[in-house]
Amino acid sequence: MTFLEKITSAQAKSGSMLCIGLDTDWRKLPEILDDDKNPVLAFNKAIIDATSDLACAYKLQIAYYEAYGERCYETIQETLEYIPKHILTIGDVKRGDIGATSEQYAYAWQELFPFDAITINPLMGTDGVEPFLRREDRGVFFLGLTSNPGARDFEYLDLMNGKKLYEEVTDKVREWNTPKKNAGLVVGATKPQELRMLRQRAPELPFLIPGVGTQGGTMEEVKAANGDGIAIVNVSRGIAGASKGSDFAEAARAAARNFV
Amino acid sequence: MTFLEKITSAQAKSGSMLCIGLDTDWRKLPEILDDDKNPVLAFNKAIIDATSDLACAYKLQIAYYEAYGERCYETIQETLEYIPKHILTIGDVKRGDIGATSEQYAYAWQELFPFDAITINPLMGTDGVEPFLRREDRGVFFLGLTSNPGARDFEYLDLMNGKKLYEEVTDKVREWNTPKKNAGLVVGATKPQELRMLRQRAPELPFLIPGVGTQGGTMEEVKAANGDGIAIVNVSRGIAGASKGSDFAEAARAAARNFV
Repeated sequence: MTFLEKITSAQAKSGSMLCIGLDTDWRKLPEILDDDKNPVLAFNKAIIDATSDLACAYKLQIAYYEAYGERCYETIQETLEYIPKHILTIGDVKRGDIGATSEQYAYAWQELFPFDAITINPLMGTDGVEPFLRREDRGVFFLGLTSNPGARDFEYLDLMNGKKLYEEVTDKVREWNTPKKNAGLVVGATKPQELRMLRQRAPELPFLIPGVGTQGGTMEEVKAANGDGIAIVNVSRGIAGASKGSDFAEAARAAARNFV
Repeated sequence: MTFLEKITSAQAKSGSMLCIGLDTDWRKLPEILDDDKNPVLAFNKAIIDATSDLACAYKLQIAYYEAYGERCYETIQETLEYIPKHILTIGDVKRGDIGATSEQYAYAWQELFPFDAITINPLMGTDGVEPFLRREDRGVFFLGLTSNPGARDFEYLDLMNGKKLYEEVTDKVREWNTPKKNAGLVVGATKPQELRMLRQRAPELPFLIPGVGTQGGTMEEVKAANGDGIAIVNVSRGIAGASKGSDFAEAARAAARNFV
């Protein structure tokens, strides 16, 4: 299946655009998991069990796994294996380097960990991103306009060619997408006006939209701004962090229902 | 010791600006290491043994360790422990995300792996980089102007304010550096003219300069362009990849001597 077919199929099954973020912080887990031999993995499995009929995708923010230390590798690996095969898996790695180095990252995040899609930082340009775009069954979401305040520092800069930097990035991602239709764009839900304009600028690109929930975006605004483009909307703390009690999985399910 | 003191002290001991890149590819090791239980670690130790009096720093390109799979964690950890304490250790991770996520990365790459310095991608702006700048004894090299062809796609873009994007980044890094003097800039050795101009623009910032050797830059050009600014010049394949034979460590030493 191509990357776009995977998204379409996963969204048809779930009937939703919802991606659930597994940004699992080992320091902040429900106490009930304290005695588990791998509390992060146990947490992820419980969230997946409770929500897998509602989500078209799960996104792992890899920073939290790196901060888990020695168990990073097995925890990512086993979480990936546990996610039902029809659901999209997204590795939020935001990597990007010179070509030879990006080849190593592509091997790590597309082969060793067989994520259906990963996030990539486009700053270093074409030769740095090319290794991630070689497989038509693996998607790459490039940082277009991020959901955080610091987006103002560089992403919004006005260029001499009349564009803003995030528009220039978007145009470049459209080029990168042309050969294999496996590129997409990260656009923050906290910026619905810009989301609407980017959707007009790049109607064919799948968007990965973070920032709904704790960061301030709402699903309604996102849906209105995105129109009928292909989009995956991520909610992390608003679902997986809905309760710290022993009811954390049920609470996550209840929270997830509000986003479908 | 502050970050700047660490650099000064390491360079006084080695008498050089040379950083040796340990971009160790497990697929391309000298055959003589085939039977070792951790060939990547054995390779790194042999290179360190052969070159530690010549280098002011070792830089680990983390992509190669991620591609090593399950042994990633122990290999980074044990390589770091093996490097003599007076030599600077640089984790080339190029991370960067929203603030809460960057906190996790900072924990991973400054605490779990106690690198003296790391590389960070500045694209997401101030709140995304702040967590990396909290410790005055840990340095952060931000991508300013990279050594690869793709730098043309975004880094060289002309802004409405009359600067190029890499100049705007440089000015922002100078701000980020102000509180704790722990920020620096990555500037590719393949661009000596721009290096000269950036050195004038930011005389106080330490530069991490990759791209000497295989990528085409020369130590002489770099020294001339950098003048008397604080700089660490990285050579990876040109030293650690000098020979694939059983003489790989001696060959690395011989190659390193050409850069000091």
